[in-house]
Amino acid sequence: MIVDTPPERIDEIVAAATRAATQLAESTPAQRAAWLHAAADGLDKAGDELIALAVRETHLPEQPRLRSELARTVFQLRLFSEVLDDGEFLRATIDHADPAWPMGPRPDIRRTVVPLGPVLVFTASNFPLALSVAGHDTAAALAAGCPVIVKAHPGHPELSARTRDVLVAALAAAGAPEGVFDNIYGVDAGTTALRHPDIQAAAFTGSVPGGRALFDIANARPRPIPFYGELGSLNPVVVTAGAVTARGTEIARGFVGSFTLGAGQFCTKPGLLLLPVGHGLEQDLLDAVAAVPEQRMLNDRIAAGYRAGVAVLREQASIARLVAPDLDPGDDSGFRPTLLRVRAADFLSDREILDRECFGPESMIIEYDGKEELRAVLNALEPGLTATVHAEDSEHEQVRMLLPLLTRLAGRLLWNGWPTGITLSWAQQHGGPYPATTSPQFTSMGAAAIERFLRPVAWQDFPDALLPAPLREANPWRLPRRVDGKR
Amino acid sequence: MIVDTPPERIDEIVAAATRAATQLAESTPAQRAAWLHAAADGLDKAGDELIALAVRETHLPEQPRLRSELARTVFQLRLFSEVLDDGEFLRATIDHADPAWPMGPRPDIRRTVVPLGPVLVFTASNFPLALSVAGHDTAAALAAGCPVIVKAHPGHPELSARTRDVLVAALAAAGAPEGVFDNIYGVDAGTTALRHPDIQAAAFTGSVPGGRALFDIANARPRPIPFYGELGSLNPVVVTAGAVTARGTEIARGFVGSFTLGAGQFCTKPGLLLLPVGHGLEQDLLDAVAAVPEQRMLNDRIAAGYRAGVAVLREQASIARLVAPDLDPGDDSGFRPTLLRVRAADFLSDREILDRECFGPESMIIEYDGKEELRAVLNALEPGLTATVHAEDSEHEQVRMLLPLLTRLAGRLLWNGWPTGITLSWAQQHGGPYPATTSPQFTSMGAAAIERFLRPVAWQDFPDALLPAPLREANPWRLPRRVDGKR
Repeated sequence: MIVDTPPERIDEIVAAATRAATQLAESTPAQRAAWLHAAADGLDKAGDELIALAVRETHLPEQPRLRSELARTVFQLRLFSEVLDDGEFLRATIDHADPAWPMGPRPDIRRTVVPLGPVLVFTASNFPLALSVAGHDTAAALAAGCPVIVKAHPGHPELSARTRDVLVAALAAAGAPEGVFDNIYGVDAGTTALRHPDIQAAAFTGSVPGGRALFDIANARPRPIPFYGELGSLNPVVVTAGAVTARGTEIARGFVGSFTLGAGQFCTKPGLLLLPVGHGLEQDLLDAVAAVPEQRMLNDRIAAGYRAGVAVLREQASIARLVAPDLDPGDDSGFRPTLLRVRAADFLSDREILDRECFGPESMIIEYDGKEELRAVLNALEPGLTATVHAEDSEHEQVRMLLPLLTRLAGRLLWNGWPTGITLSWAQQHGGPYPATTSPQFTSMGAAAIERFLRPVAWQDFPDALLPAPLREANPWRLPRRVDGKR
Repeated sequence: MIVDTPPERIDEIVAAATRAATQLAESTPAQRAAWLHAAADGLDKAGDELIALAVRETHLPEQPRLRSELARTVFQLRLFSEVLDDGEFLRATIDHADPAWPMGPRPDIRRTVVPLGPVLVFTASNFPLALSVAGHDTAAALAAGCPVIVKAHPGHPELSARTRDVLVAALAAAGAPEGVFDNIYGVDAGTTALRHPDIQAAAFTGSVPGGRALFDIANARPRPIPFYGELGSLNPVVVTAGAVTARGTEIARGFVGSFTLGAGQFCTKPGLLLLPVGHGLEQDLLDAVAAVPEQRMLNDRIAAGYRAGVAVLREQASIARLVAPDLDPGDDSGFRPTLLRVRAADFLSDREILDRECFGPESMIIEYDGKEELRAVLNALEPGLTATVHAEDSEHEQVRMLLPLLTRLAGRLLWNGWPTGITLSWAQQHGGPYPATTSPQFTSMGAAAIERFLRPVAWQDFPDALLPAPLREANPWRLPRRVDGKR
């Protein structure tokens, strides 16, 4: 039984993290890369045990889901060790003194980045490994050199505690300082820690109301800190007439597969499918939905929220129920998908439909009549994490006109694909303007996620021996650097 | 006579900026570089007229001050055109599809940055050219491809209006779209614009209370936006015993020159000089202060704030008045510097002294007794923009122990120099944790300042013809790119 962390224990954990922060600031990227490899190895070794706990606490299937999530979690840690080896994240920049600098004599000035300090991470329920204790925010913050305190998600407390132990043991064995990582538990513990003056940044993945409440707390501190919230996203998918004609059935199947994947409990679930009127795909959609087995949701709280959200939508006069199964089966057996339909004009006139995000296996078809109506719908949508277009190669010019609207809407654009399933790589971008995230300048996944936990510092006219290694004249770490404006 | 901008006019200006944003998002860096050069040329040509207005409205001397500020302003615009020519700011990153990617088959994914959209800039009073209408925030946002609306500072309204006209004319003549730049006037106009749903980011340079109030408004919006506030900074200067012995007189003179420069109205004014007890520099400090002529302050409001701030400090029992001239000379002739002194132990026990920032020609000596007391003072300080150390080469080890404390405290560290006078270059960093700024991850000056107004977007599996130019396979702009993890 995991109990809520009392305030005095939070103080101890933050104090240990603060001491560790001083040591981490002196650590080399190579040391931190080794710690991340050790953490990855530790998770790999404890994999069976962690997956068994995850199955018990989240109702997610081991195969393929949790196995692939574990692989993703381990890979994520290793990707950041590559980022550390690469060294460009340090953005080492040197401008030598220049008496002839056009605006007036220039001193020697050199810039790199340093870790922000202890980071508080609020984990998500829907990826109990990849977005949780040893997940993407933890990996990025440790890579940056920041100690991490995880506010564990109540949806999988035992798994969280066990993952914490695995991580702490692996980090310690690899030589990371004490206090570099710990968990806390309980809603109040989370907000207490978020208000702690020694916490220097926070990251969150979850709902818009939850994330906004924490964002407000972070900003109301006497000394506000960066708060990286990844909140909600409708992930619209636009289908052109040409795509319907060429491969309507395939699109219907792909769409249903994507919005029902993991019982629709993904931040990238396609929540809107924009089809041209007269698309004739009803039967394909119905067939595809009928083929989806019942799925249990992560926990009762999420199931209750989903029921309530869908119930509101189903009562809207303008919404047609393509597939509307019983939402209260009276037993624990799970949910069949819900698929709704609305005309673009009705969608545009009803904010309650516009702003909904139902976390679960529900999606909505919007039927648009012509380009202007499609543009109007895209203009009315809130920004999100992704926007997708399905079109034919013969329709490039038509799509080109839509791209500015789609770019405004999202941090990732997809062509003839589905937004669920986020690869981790150098080019990945998982973010977007509010309400997708609270910090559109950053990504929470992929190599660039490390940038959230660093801040630049410049050294002016310092003796070489006192400069941090990335900025010493001899470039002892052989970093890619910009020197006097030249790469 | 400049009148406050009424709400309906703000709506028009934001609407024009929003239309321009769509066009700017399609502009090339080369086009924007040409606009910035045109803006720089326009300012250069109108220089005499602008400087005459600045002299009249700000009491700043033409030589050398306003002339060098104009040079800085023009240089700033040209520096960003170099950033645009260089292209690394686009962070173009390409990961080709890879079926053997360790975490599972990878789609083709490509990432670059896009402009945030219309930016609202609150200008400062103390640099009527370089931190004002055509100043650093405007230059960075335009370079990023964001239309700019400047909330002009009431300290120099006619200069602001004239600079706006010069800028608008230069940008239009160079082919920039209509609506790309405009001014608004009045406190209410500023907050109304900050709440406008189509404003996508804001930047501010000024006081802690003013900046915090605007930061709070930006975060309380239904859709919060990035707010880049550059607020307050004490800019502590640590002097070691060795430095006092080797060149105490020189340090005293340099310090007084720096804290009285521009009547102390700089965000990088050294507000604290930490000297070892028994330094024996009193007479040198007094002599240096006595040599500083009277200086007028920017305007009556700033002068009144300065008087009130110094009056509070002078009344503290623990503070000795090294130099404490009459603060109410009864005429408009100007101010002589105030220099106070406090023992480290007293400083540490009094938050009212600790947290002060007096905008004007005032500074404070803190006398520390040994390393531990010095560390305690540095630990107690709030973060700021700069921290400086004066030491001898024989004292490297002693300074090395202080560096973690100084790094925590600031965005720029200086060795044997003075924080006033900020060069603009690739490596410059002007920022720091709150209250130095509201966004420690960024700089407001130097080449990297452009990053504040960009957000990343990824394109997944897009046809080459529909990709933005930075991400096309053939690399038509010949950008530095990272491809499949390799630079």
